[in-house]
Amino acid sequence: MNIIPSVIGLGYVGLPIFLKLQKKFKTIGFDNNKSRILNLSKKIDSNKEFPKKKLSLLNGSYFTDQLSMLKKSNFYIVAVPTPVRKNNIPDLDNLKESCHLISKVLKKNDIVFFESTVYPGVTENFCAKLLEKKSNLKLDKDFFIGYSPERINPGDKNHSVDKIYKIISTNNPSVMGIAKKVYKIITKKLITTKNIKEAESAKVIENIQRDLNIGLMNEIYKVCYKSNIDFKNVIKLASSKWNFIKFNPGLVGGHCLPVDPYYYSTYAKKFGIKTDIILSGRKINNSMYKFMYNKLIKEIKKNKKISKNSKILILGLTYKKNVSDIRNSYALELFKLLKKKYKYLQVCDPLLTNKKIENIKILNDFSAIKYDLIINMVNHDLFKTKILNIKKNKKIHYLELF
Amino acid sequence: MNIIPSVIGLGYVGLPIFLKLQKKFKTIGFDNNKSRILNLSKKIDSNKEFPKKKLSLLNGSYFTDQLSMLKKSNFYIVAVPTPVRKNNIPDLDNLKESCHLISKVLKKNDIVFFESTVYPGVTENFCAKLLEKKSNLKLDKDFFIGYSPERINPGDKNHSVDKIYKIISTNNPSVMGIAKKVYKIITKKLITTKNIKEAESAKVIENIQRDLNIGLMNEIYKVCYKSNIDFKNVIKLASSKWNFIKFNPGLVGGHCLPVDPYYYSTYAKKFGIKTDIILSGRKINNSMYKFMYNKLIKEIKKNKKISKNSKILILGLTYKKNVSDIRNSYALELFKLLKKKYKYLQVCDPLLTNKKIENIKILNDFSAIKYDLIINMVNHDLFKTKILNIKKNKKIHYLELF
Repeated sequence: MNIIPSVIGLGYVGLPIFLKLQKKFKTIGFDNNKSRILNLSKKIDSNKEFPKKKLSLLNGSYFTDQLSMLKKSNFYIVAVPTPVRKNNIPDLDNLKESCHLISKVLKKNDIVFFESTVYPGVTENFCAKLLEKKSNLKLDKDFFIGYSPERINPGDKNHSVDKIYKIISTNNPSVMGIAKKVYKIITKKLITTKNIKEAESAKVIENIQRDLNIGLMNEIYKVCYKSNIDFKNVIKLASSKWNFIKFNPGLVGGHCLPVDPYYYSTYAKKFGIKTDIILSGRKINNSMYKFMYNKLIKEIKKNKKISKNSKILILGLTYKKNVSDIRNSYALELFKLLKKKYKYLQVCDPLLTNKKIENIKILNDFSAIKYDLIINMVNHDLFKTKILNIKKNKKIHYLELF
Repeated sequence: MNIIPSVIGLGYVGLPIFLKLQKKFKTIGFDNNKSRILNLSKKIDSNKEFPKKKLSLLNGSYFTDQLSMLKKSNFYIVAVPTPVRKNNIPDLDNLKESCHLISKVLKKNDIVFFESTVYPGVTENFCAKLLEKKSNLKLDKDFFIGYSPERINPGDKNHSVDKIYKIISTNNPSVMGIAKKVYKIITKKLITTKNIKEAESAKVIENIQRDLNIGLMNEIYKVCYKSNIDFKNVIKLASSKWNFIKFNPGLVGGHCLPVDPYYYSTYAKKFGIKTDIILSGRKINNSMYKFMYNKLIKEIKKNKKISKNSKILILGLTYKKNVSDIRNSYALELFKLLKKKYKYLQVCDPLLTNKKIENIKILNDFSAIKYDLIINMVNHDLFKTKILNIKKNKKIHYLELF
């Protein structure tokens, strides 16, 4: 079989997969976002994860937003976002649209793998059903499915996709053989299961564990702050126990952690289980920016030179450091609260230039001496040198969040 | 200064400390439990943590329940239990009693260290005040205090007190010098802070983190079980992620984990903080035995040969494996539920013989072939060989909890 992989969705997850696969295969990169395809064709990654030289096309691979150009593929990898709706119910519309699209070009013996984070059963009961219905082909007879959860950690160069373990799951042994041939180009570290629901569960609980543990640190941080105990010292002491695990408190935003707890909770509810623990973690993380707002205001007020008319600069607006992703960014929410209180509030985030974020004017650079107060909300590495200088300048009041 | 340490409370925490200290110092081991003192004098540790040969007295050290015999000490180490009352409010009565006792013999320049798990402030605001009041001596002028949280993990030979880091905290530099001389006999790995509240916080959050993470696994275990997904496989897959932390689900009992979340929550409440996360972990852990009961009943019913009149044996009743501690044991609670349902229910736990546990007759040994069903609730290492044989015997139905 001559494998022609395609990647549906060329965002934080899909693009690195595409770039790996095209080293070995003629690979089709599909995205329904026209401007994303235009940019990628010009070797521009607006997410700033890849420089120009890494975006050259190899082995006849191409980027496209045209369905007809997807036809040649026989191994589809779906890497579209799975967010939640306003009421925190899973929003599977992107998956639905992808399945609809693929079903129009699906042929006999084609294989469809999903990378998007979902709750257990979505691949088999939702995606496969859509593919069957629209294509008039039969699952496990005419076409096959699998699930391989993405573990991309944007901004983290130590855990790039080629260095980490990747789960692949499919119930068909010969499909597993083909999937291995494809995925081993991405990483040598493959771990397999025949049960797709196990792989779906594994992915979502990884993120939940992290979300909850940061939530716990946020809860303890609050207690320490309110009772005037040095949180960092407490953690340093606790870390001297052999089984204590260090997590930092934080504004946990982004596309994964604020979403996955709701996916699993929605699933659990179907079986009559209330996920009090999982939701308690998310609850505090959802509201932590408000606590940080009150803390900031209190700290600002200690400096009598700072008034409502002072010139204030915010550094960083993304959901975490060193990424250009603004989805579910609590730094953004915090900025909005501060904006209501302070007249002259500006924001600098070089990772967000060229992106339109509501009506906010985002500076690409700044001159520190222009400001009375600088608040570092997202500690991007690129601010490092400037911050060292700011700290030396006694005229500028400098604050960090935690 | 000629240091004469004493240890108040010779349980799971105090005894190992006493045994270490007497290697260097004439040490006084005090416990108000007469029979404990009698046993220890006969080199019997009813907790089964130490064999006879390790209980020999050295350097003129002695065990006593007489206050007058405590007088010679000038460095008191308090290691009494700090449980919760029925309504989950911290019960500081043992600490109170210890302080009352010490205050009767407290002299100028004496030092009192506390090892008991408490919430921040108890050492300074509760214990020290009691010591002052009853002794008519002044804190930090006449006598001094410190806090060194115990990290004893009963049944765990890999993390004995001499191999792990120990926190010592006291606000007085010269007291810190003396404390180091004492505690370095226990472990070379000392970590210090001048702020007692930091040390108190560190201890309690270590246990909370563990309690919560096991709670999360219990929650996920429930979801997997109810939706027929193999929990162990899910965890195996998730563990292939670089930052996933493996915790096992379980019946989290004992003296620490079921207690400490309430200590910290009581403290947090004083500062207006609701500890939803911390309490959510404890909540599921408190009720997990009921879930396991229903699961067991369901699994037992699958075997048509087992009836309400079958002969059933329970293995293990302690709060965890390889310990003889029954405090807050959910295996015990589970046993009681099963006892109501099954007529011929016996229990074997060699670690609990000689201990009176309500009206339960606890076997020291068993003959497997006498039973139709054997349920291993606490997987003591000493059952290992017998269980291997039981698993081979097809006539006996064998079940484990998780």
